Amino acid sequence: MSAKIRPLSGFPELLPAQRVVEQQVVDTLRQTFELHGFAGIETRAVEPLDQLLRKGDTSKEVYLLRRLQEESPEGHAGLGLHFDLTVPFARYVLENAGRLEFPFRRYQIQKVWRGERPQEGRFREFTQADIDIVGRDTLAFHHDVEVTRVMLDALSRIDLLPSLRLQVNNRKLIQGFYAGLGIADTDEVMRLVDKLDKLPVEQVRALLVDEAGASDAQAEQVLALATIRSADASFVDRVRALGVEHPLLDEGLTELAALVAGCADLVDDRVRIEADLSIARGLDYYTGTVFETRLDGYESLGSICSGGRYDALASDGRTTYPGVGISLGLSRLVVTLLARTGMTADRAVPSAVLVAVNDEDSRSESDAIATALRAHGVPCEVAASAAKFGKQIRYAERRGIPYVWFTGEAGHQVKDIRTGEQVAADPDTWAPPHDDLRPKVVSRTDQEQKQ
Amino acid sequence: MSAKIRPLSGFPELLPAQRVVEQQVVDTLRQTFELHGFAGIETRAVEPLDQLLRKGDTSKEVYLLRRLQEESPEGHAGLGLHFDLTVPFARYVLENAGRLEFPFRRYQIQKVWRGERPQEGRFREFTQADIDIVGRDTLAFHHDVEVTRVMLDALSRIDLLPSLRLQVNNRKLIQGFYAGLGIADTDEVMRLVDKLDKLPVEQVRALLVDEAGASDAQAEQVLALATIRSADASFVDRVRALGVEHPLLDEGLTELAALVAGCADLVDDRVRIEADLSIARGLDYYTGTVFETRLDGYESLGSICSGGRYDALASDGRTTYPGVGISLGLSRLVVTLLARTGMTADRAVPSAVLVAVNDEDSRSESDAIATALRAHGVPCEVAASAAKFGKQIRYAERRGIPYVWFTGEAGHQVKDIRTGEQVAADPDTWAPPHDDLRPKVVSRTDQEQKQ
Repeated sequence: MSAKIRPLSGFPELLPAQRVVEQQVVDTLRQTFELHGFAGIETRAVEPLDQLLRKGDTSKEVYLLRRLQEESPEGHAGLGLHFDLTVPFARYVLENAGRLEFPFRRYQIQKVWRGERPQEGRFREFTQADIDIVGRDTLAFHHDVEVTRVMLDALSRIDLLPSLRLQVNNRKLIQGFYAGLGIADTDEVMRLVDKLDKLPVEQVRALLVDEAGASDAQAEQVLALATIRSADASFVDRVRALGVEHPLLDEGLTELAALVAGCADLVDDRVRIEADLSIARGLDYYTGTVFETRLDGYESLGSICSGGRYDALASDGRTTYPGVGISLGLSRLVVTLLARTGMTADRAVPSAVLVAVNDEDSRSESDAIATALRAHGVPCEVAASAAKFGKQIRYAERRGIPYVWFTGEAGHQVKDIRTGEQVAADPDTWAPPHDDLRPKVVSRTDQEQKQ
Repeated sequence: MSAKIRPLSGFPELLPAQRVVEQQVVDTLRQTFELHGFAGIETRAVEPLDQLLRKGDTSKEVYLLRRLQEESPEGHAGLGLHFDLTVPFARYVLENAGRLEFPFRRYQIQKVWRGERPQEGRFREFTQADIDIVGRDTLAFHHDVEVTRVMLDALSRIDLLPSLRLQVNNRKLIQGFYAGLGIADTDEVMRLVDKLDKLPVEQVRALLVDEAGASDAQAEQVLALATIRSADASFVDRVRALGVEHPLLDEGLTELAALVAGCADLVDDRVRIEADLSIARGLDYYTGTVFETRLDGYESLGSICSGGRYDALASDGRTTYPGVGISLGLSRLVVTLLARTGMTADRAVPSAVLVAVNDEDSRSESDAIATALRAHGVPCEVAASAAKFGKQIRYAERRGIPYVWFTGEAGHQVKDIRTGEQVAADPDTWAPPHDDLRPKVVSRTDQEQKQ
């Protein structure tokens, strides 16, 4: 291959050391999801176009597929790349309903594609990590608490994350409040309230009156509700103080209070949960709990982890499958952190040891040492050439490999090239300290101090 | 979502228990590749179309991308989905050459797409697992031995595989032999010899004479070479006995003999290596070592693991990057094994324990037990409803969860529901036997005996 090489805007790729960081986040998520009993599945990358276009407002983002040799675009199977993992999961549930046990807990960590204009944190190809619990006919509310707990647990295990807050609200609470106020078009009001993080409050107030037909008093109450936030159940009294009453509001308040209380034991300085009554998730079809997540210091990224409860995640006409889930924007998170903080790994290769080669004739002896080290789980590589030892050490240094293994008249010796310390060692039993076994995530500051 | 649900031919999807099998294979590959110092990278799913079409003969298989809202197909960026991991890797090497250390070892486990007609083992979307070592300007031959050893090690660690043989040959050997015979168009002869596994030998003989312009004597020698195979270096004498001489042939014989000898210690009854002088890898641009792999009893699948040496994996005009690598058709392997053997996992969920719920009011106590179990790495889930204990046990049985945790007047008790044995246990310290901690791969026979 020889050609002009052009990075593609919106299709981020990582260098090997950066990929170590991403892989560690993926591993942590997977491990946490499995500890909570979530089964990992993958779905195909493509869905029939008619399925992808059911959510009207995302149609502009879909990538269509066509085989190069196909006669005409009309002749194709009408396939597009999935733009999220919810549409394919709903289809998977319907397709396999008879072979799944409900409630069905699944996690799914896969790439998705959207033809959006690329910008910071917005890509055309990116990885999402989704968890959902789906029931058949019914799904108890305690599963809303469960998915929240799982994602909080996962986020708290990702060491490299800045502090963050998971913001929760409840559509029943909002809709019940609006209904109690006598507002007819609750969806339109919700859509306008969702603009509060982009527009000044006075402009939203005007839109509520002009576009949603709310009275000044109704608009006032709607905006008052949206200002309420609390890290505990105290929001309930503040909503009650607004004097609005509706059975659906009661239900929403009870659920949201239970959610915040049910997660209290998982909260710490770094990972918080907050009832935020301005969160509405715009046009998405949620029917109860809704989630968004903000990283402190990364407000411009928007929500990195969102979701909620669907009373009908999927339906085949006879059976309805309610679900509750959260989707973490993994690439948005990792690529942005890498770019802004310079975070990386302390080595670009898995090798903890470079086995030196004395001369090409004895390469197989070095191979045998490497085989012995690997047999008890020590990642290593054999030097590419039998250069002078100084050169072989520099080869290890450039890759960040901490140890070099020598074999000579003095027998087997292993050298920590960071300290210069060299000790006798047996390839069948020697292992580095646990901390050196795998590449470690380091900040730019760590790296600078090292150099 | 409600709609007609149609599986798409060529886009295989797995049930959760089947996905456990695939995930274990992926984990084993990744672990082995990292033990050998290979860095994991991912590349974007798309490449510019002109890059994808450089290999003329695969153009028919490419999927083109177009955004739904794009004005006209002509206006698009000319992107297609990658059909292998070699083209994107070569591009990645050129794009990042200044930031990589050479020789650069990488593994890459990703989906690829080809618009082929689906059949057993041939999919439109499938996962490949590739390893390559790429050098700058030069790459020593011992790296050919290294990638072979890594893949043999990986294959021997995948317990569920039937026995197999890695077939190796060398383009220099073939081309040197043909040149020594006085054949002008060695590429055409190689292409025809590659048909030996599909066509009768007499037909290939005729094609050699009619299409490649070989004499009867030359065709005879070409076919004689292609019959030679051996599990050790004895092929060298058999080639010499044909009386052909050429420097390139000598080089090829030396390399191939070194390859077979260099892997001898990794060979056993299940994983063999064989010099097979009929292997040519058709039109691919290999320049030395070539690989194919056959699973015993699955001959119709063709090669499940192929590759070889490129003198120019990539080039930017100034610098050339030689490489050697092998690509394992992971989906071809796993989906076929699952379909043919009924292999699956003994449970469809990661949970080793179901924590029973006494009543909804005490659900948080069950949650606390689950949290304690997870804190020392025991995957578990809490029962979805406070049904009668018999019903909760059947809930666990249907999912294959081996243990149920009860809390009552007798304190904490854990029951192995396969044996009925129930013992007192502390949620902060109790763990199942190691063998029960993760789902296990089982054959259909195991499953039938269990039921």
